[in-house]
Amino acid sequence: MSVSNSDINAHDTVRVELDSRSYDIHIGHGLLHEVGPKVLEFAPGGRAIIVTDDHVNTAHGDRLRVVLEANGVSHETVCVTPGEPSKGWPVFHDVVEAILASHAERGDLVIAFGGGVIGDLAGFAASVVRRGMGFIQVPTSLLAQVDSSVGGKTGINSPHGKNLIGAFHQPTHVTIDLDVLKTLPPREFRAGYAEMVKYGLIDDEGFFAWLEANHGEVFSHGNALGRAVANSCRSKARVVAADERESGARALLNLGHTFGHALEGSVAYDGERLVHGEGVAIGMALAHRFSNRLNRCSADDCKRVEHHLQAVGLPTRIQDIPGEHPSVPALMEFIQQDKKVKRGSLTFILTRGIGSAYIQNDVSPWEVATFLETELSS
Amino acid sequence: MSVSNSDINAHDTVRVELDSRSYDIHIGHGLLHEVGPKVLEFAPGGRAIIVTDDHVNTAHGDRLRVVLEANGVSHETVCVTPGEPSKGWPVFHDVVEAILASHAERGDLVIAFGGGVIGDLAGFAASVVRRGMGFIQVPTSLLAQVDSSVGGKTGINSPHGKNLIGAFHQPTHVTIDLDVLKTLPPREFRAGYAEMVKYGLIDDEGFFAWLEANHGEVFSHGNALGRAVANSCRSKARVVAADERESGARALLNLGHTFGHALEGSVAYDGERLVHGEGVAIGMALAHRFSNRLNRCSADDCKRVEHHLQAVGLPTRIQDIPGEHPSVPALMEFIQQDKKVKRGSLTFILTRGIGSAYIQNDVSPWEVATFLETELSS
Repeated sequence: MSVSNSDINAHDTVRVELDSRSYDIHIGHGLLHEVGPKVLEFAPGGRAIIVTDDHVNTAHGDRLRVVLEANGVSHETVCVTPGEPSKGWPVFHDVVEAILASHAERGDLVIAFGGGVIGDLAGFAASVVRRGMGFIQVPTSLLAQVDSSVGGKTGINSPHGKNLIGAFHQPTHVTIDLDVLKTLPPREFRAGYAEMVKYGLIDDEGFFAWLEANHGEVFSHGNALGRAVANSCRSKARVVAADERESGARALLNLGHTFGHALEGSVAYDGERLVHGEGVAIGMALAHRFSNRLNRCSADDCKRVEHHLQAVGLPTRIQDIPGEHPSVPALMEFIQQDKKVKRGSLTFILTRGIGSAYIQNDVSPWEVATFLETELSS
Repeated sequence: MSVSNSDINAHDTVRVELDSRSYDIHIGHGLLHEVGPKVLEFAPGGRAIIVTDDHVNTAHGDRLRVVLEANGVSHETVCVTPGEPSKGWPVFHDVVEAILASHAERGDLVIAFGGGVIGDLAGFAASVVRRGMGFIQVPTSLLAQVDSSVGGKTGINSPHGKNLIGAFHQPTHVTIDLDVLKTLPPREFRAGYAEMVKYGLIDDEGFFAWLEANHGEVFSHGNALGRAVANSCRSKARVVAADERESGARALLNLGHTFGHALEGSVAYDGERLVHGEGVAIGMALAHRFSNRLNRCSADDCKRVEHHLQAVGLPTRIQDIPGEHPSVPALMEFIQQDKKVKRGSLTFILTRGIGSAYIQNDVSPWEVATFLETELSS
């Protein structure tokens, strides 16, 4: 159990150790004001290109621009349509060309100001403009704050599957302002919460138990929220530092994601029906039940995971997705296109119980398909 | 003077030292046969996705596929239209999606089989598919063999300028088969020769003098060709090893390129009017004359450079480009969009004479524009 009991209304810093690509994550209330000084620090004399979406721009854009102007940083804003469909070729093309049209130079900074879609999209755009510009992550959704803004995975979706096109491109700095979460829709907050639960399920049963006890205070934006965010970032930073390019242990972060991505793909990334964190919640529940079917995980642990996810309003079954259920062949097509595939056999993150996830190679597609048949007919 | 006098009809190996990303360049006759074993070496059990263009595929594609099949390597071929226009968004999109459609896995290898356009396009595609696949460069043009296949710069063109979108992505291996040059059109051979001249002009007057004496044998595919290619690769490997991401000395490789890219942009990358190596030839002549105007380089050295380029049939003046001449404002727009721009002032590679190029920051756009006016009215 690694959650600090001290009050972290004060700012917290998590360091991501990656040699010359190391950077800090700052976590706290009212931190948007640090972005101006950070641009001056990392790009002296440089300009900022804010990549954001209409929702975030309306809610917080002016505050960010005021902060930049107060520090004498000239800026431009590139604004895209909110939602997962923006994480594809057409918008990627437009963002890259807009950054170039702003006459951005290699030493200027992109500011990824938004949720996971914006972070992945803007980070990937920054990685390819002039073969690599720096960028600051200013995540505005809980999911982006605890997961996607940290670790350098950037990219877009292909018709062949999610996140199949992208780059490892570490941010120059991450600013997490907890205040921006106050305008986040409850459904999005829950979706981000699923990724926090994941860190407990992977290797920190104590954190999972702490979340079981404190989720009320997390959801009411009490002190527990900052503690949970900082603890999640610390977990992720540790894994990323040990395995930046996912040649080994970083794959543990995919717990629930192979199933989750397949579910998202099977509803054509329709955020009305399923957002990423919900897919991960169902995926984590499936990973535990699949592990149980393979005699690796107790039924009690499966139940405990389901109960906690349900307690905060997250789905745990494929049938919880509104609309027509995806077919097993459709799900298998996405699962076999996942990046975790190697030489035809599947790699899954399975678990021996809460806090004891592990990487299982050589999972047969047949076993997975049979399990999914059972799930869908239960 | 670093050209070896030994006969290198035997294979030659140049090592590019980049820590965990180090790789070998093999240079020799009949080397296409090594590509099969190389795939087995770097991707045991893996597959090969050949990215090529119609010309190269017709001339050499079957030979490469036979070599792969003889080694039990399964393969697919992605074929694009020859020419610079393929180095843009639409074809990049198609190549990335075609690689994904082939169900390529992270451990499979892309084979970039063609000239500079194919190497840049396929290398960039490999860098973004699943956030990075390995790739083997099998360059089939002289320009690609001595320049673009070595060093990891990959990318595509933007409407805003050449190579503005891309990645640093080092190949896993480079195979240079001198035999494939026999089918290269003379104009393309000359264009590649311009990049070899560049290595002499940067820091090796001895090599420049050797080329002056031996260019006949180079153009007749004698032993001098292999020597010149190997020496060029060695020069480039040395510079890349010292400065992979162009934070310093690697910029010297851009000698002639800021002018050259602007010329290519101003004819809208129309390869009928100007191919890259011709732009570089004019650009190198311009860089010497601009240096002379700034009292850095003697008029004699300018003449010697022009004479040698003209001796092999390369252009040396903007007016040598057929069709309407580009305007100075049009050229300046491209020059100011170049990646070498920093905080509004220009960085140029200038020279104190043959073999003595250096990086000059803070070149005023006004000086450049005035020089170009003089050139165009001479």
